[in-house]
Amino acid sequence: MTPHVVIIGGGFGGLNAALSLARRNVRVTLVDRRNVHLFQPLLYQVATGGLSPGDITSPLRRILRRHRNVRVWLTDATGFDLDNHLVQLRDGSTHYDFLVVAPGVRNHYFGHHDWARVAPSLKTVEDAIEIRRRVLLAFERAELAETDDERKAWLTFAVIGAGPTGVELAGAMSELGRDTLRRDFRAIDTRASRIVLVEGADRTLPPFPAKLSTQCQRQLERLGVEVRLESRVTAIDGDGVSIETADGSSRLAARTVLWAAGVTAESLGQVLADAASCPTDGQGRLMVNEDLSVAGYHNVFVIGDLAHFDHGLPSPLPGIAPVAMQQGRYVAQHIVADIRGAASGPFRYRNKGQLATIGRAAAVADLGPRLRFSGYPAWILWLFVHLMYLVEFQNRVMVLLQWAWHYITWNRGARIITVPPSDPSREPDP
Amino acid sequence: MTPHVVIIGGGFGGLNAALSLARRNVRVTLVDRRNVHLFQPLLYQVATGGLSPGDITSPLRRILRRHRNVRVWLTDATGFDLDNHLVQLRDGSTHYDFLVVAPGVRNHYFGHHDWARVAPSLKTVEDAIEIRRRVLLAFERAELAETDDERKAWLTFAVIGAGPTGVELAGAMSELGRDTLRRDFRAIDTRASRIVLVEGADRTLPPFPAKLSTQCQRQLERLGVEVRLESRVTAIDGDGVSIETADGSSRLAARTVLWAAGVTAESLGQVLADAASCPTDGQGRLMVNEDLSVAGYHNVFVIGDLAHFDHGLPSPLPGIAPVAMQQGRYVAQHIVADIRGAASGPFRYRNKGQLATIGRAAAVADLGPRLRFSGYPAWILWLFVHLMYLVEFQNRVMVLLQWAWHYITWNRGARIITVPPSDPSREPDP
Repeated sequence: MTPHVVIIGGGFGGLNAALSLARRNVRVTLVDRRNVHLFQPLLYQVATGGLSPGDITSPLRRILRRHRNVRVWLTDATGFDLDNHLVQLRDGSTHYDFLVVAPGVRNHYFGHHDWARVAPSLKTVEDAIEIRRRVLLAFERAELAETDDERKAWLTFAVIGAGPTGVELAGAMSELGRDTLRRDFRAIDTRASRIVLVEGADRTLPPFPAKLSTQCQRQLERLGVEVRLESRVTAIDGDGVSIETADGSSRLAARTVLWAAGVTAESLGQVLADAASCPTDGQGRLMVNEDLSVAGYHNVFVIGDLAHFDHGLPSPLPGIAPVAMQQGRYVAQHIVADIRGAASGPFRYRNKGQLATIGRAAAVADLGPRLRFSGYPAWILWLFVHLMYLVEFQNRVMVLLQWAWHYITWNRGARIITVPPSDPSREPDP
Repeated sequence: MTPHVVIIGGGFGGLNAALSLARRNVRVTLVDRRNVHLFQPLLYQVATGGLSPGDITSPLRRILRRHRNVRVWLTDATGFDLDNHLVQLRDGSTHYDFLVVAPGVRNHYFGHHDWARVAPSLKTVEDAIEIRRRVLLAFERAELAETDDERKAWLTFAVIGAGPTGVELAGAMSELGRDTLRRDFRAIDTRASRIVLVEGADRTLPPFPAKLSTQCQRQLERLGVEVRLESRVTAIDGDGVSIETADGSSRLAARTVLWAAGVTAESLGQVLADAASCPTDGQGRLMVNEDLSVAGYHNVFVIGDLAHFDHGLPSPLPGIAPVAMQQGRYVAQHIVADIRGAASGPFRYRNKGQLATIGRAAAVADLGPRLRFSGYPAWILWLFVHLMYLVEFQNRVMVLLQWAWHYITWNRGARIITVPPSDPSREPDP
């Protein structure tokens, strides 16, 4: 019987594994609880009204439709029986010959669960819609505010964490107030809106070289973003943020707080770690072998953000799309070789560089020690790389057109505030 | 002091009133609880994954940004003190010299409130997202179904009501199964999906001439839609629909039921009717004077779907966009004339025809007794008229491109299933 490969998760890692196994002599089942592949690097554009969710998602079924040996199951994986090669699903279980686990990570508030309610973070499409709703509503509330203090608090936006996501959000929100919405209101001047970016480390974009961090900060400040480094958040509530620095503690009155400071493994990661007696790191990631398998189970692989891979490296590989994609392709080749009885070498990450965008025509690029640059050329490169990665042709063309349109008109069209269904009679599932 | 015109509702009626009052010597306040104008005639495309919500909505502020005498308030109108010229808002009240009330209608289940939960209807963007979620999930559930009966029930879709919305939905859903999703599944043949359109009257599109109803039905049947006329729905639950005809009653096993059968006035209509002691019709619409004012209040106007206007007509004007738009423009001119002390003639509706689309390259057009046609030419006309009406240039171009893309590829890209937030800790308002 043709070997059965079960892949859990249709993100960059899982999807690339599935695509690489297409037309090979295996049966592939891709399990995801979402019906789409999400192009996460552009999620901040949905959160700030530049793109619609449909622009940055592609139905998994459509991406895989031509590959008849791959099927997609829209369901949840809930557990593992590794000795009997079984995955438990919400509605049954399935036998595998090879298992690839790639559920990714979710946001993490360092134990402050109550912060999630007041400071949404950006990981899913629903998160992005919620952030868009809050940011746009804040301007509406400011327009109707009756006191100066209230108006100011609605026009102050705090972004916690100056990693790539925090920097993107802060840059895009600054453009929203300074350009897009500038002429839309009557009682407020949206250019007076304040974006405060709070970071615990001593520079923005900690994973990048220090020189680019400085350039990133300069570009942010040119956009009017206040960057506060070496600042630790000690409390978040509906009225603002409490911040502690070496100089003491202070309070920022901000009605809108966004969280971009931490991630932790999806809970399925712990379920697998328990089943395999596999150690995890501080972020809940599973320590994997050189071939991405889990110790003791040569046919079980962990890839993407959930994998802690540090063989021969000074620090573990970061949770970024290129790592996950290369791991997905590696695992597929490894499985095909294994079936043939051939051996594979260990996984090696080929670092092609890192990019981060800051705003309109502003970005930083790190393509190795001798190729680090920022500003307009970095932004053009960023745009090109991201459009090329967009899985589907339609999305690629549409997003490019939307982008060209924004660029010419400073406009953001996807500004609808949808109402979360508060009617409890609406069931989550039909 | 410059006269103050308060307009409640940013739909076709209210928005056209505001646009016609721009640059006139009045102050205009447009009150809406949504921040966007919704192009309702294309809402069925969102419900079936063809377009994103952002494609058919435009921020009210952006449409009105150049008109400095018009401001937008995102809030709810809650009551009226007509003798003192006051509108009560959720957060205060405002004085008016002229009041234009255009809140529109909402869906109506003829007293069967429990049907709303199992059979969503199509009036708001949230409705469309919910319908899209249910329709797409039904195919996913069918793919994983364990019995034939279960599979069939998931692949049966009932649409209640064969007015324009029901016909559009049924046609688009048929295309979804027959073309768009055809190659996406492995365990099911989506072409086997059944669309049943249930109508109480003896023909589809009751407001259209009988000849076009026949052609509409023929086009629907060519798309594989089962049309059941003279059929009354007596019960809807999670398993299907009970239908009564002259021949007796029957049961249709369908896990997905959509409601397109009835509307009633927004509740604000009754609040105004009570305040003005104004009679209403069976659908809750207010009986208006020849100049669209409310009896006894020459400075209070009701326009759009909420107005019952039948002066000199065999039947009241239907609740369609062209009527609302013409009424909005009329009221604006009437107010400007009134301020100058001039008189206005009564409102006259200029019927330029009616269009309804059925599916890809299928539609019916009624442009008067000698100009009634259907099929491809009617569809092209429908497409042209609807694109021209789209308020914003960006949307117009984008929607045309999306449409061209679908037409060439049979594809529908906006197929994301979003998860309704079930976490009660997520507050509706920040």
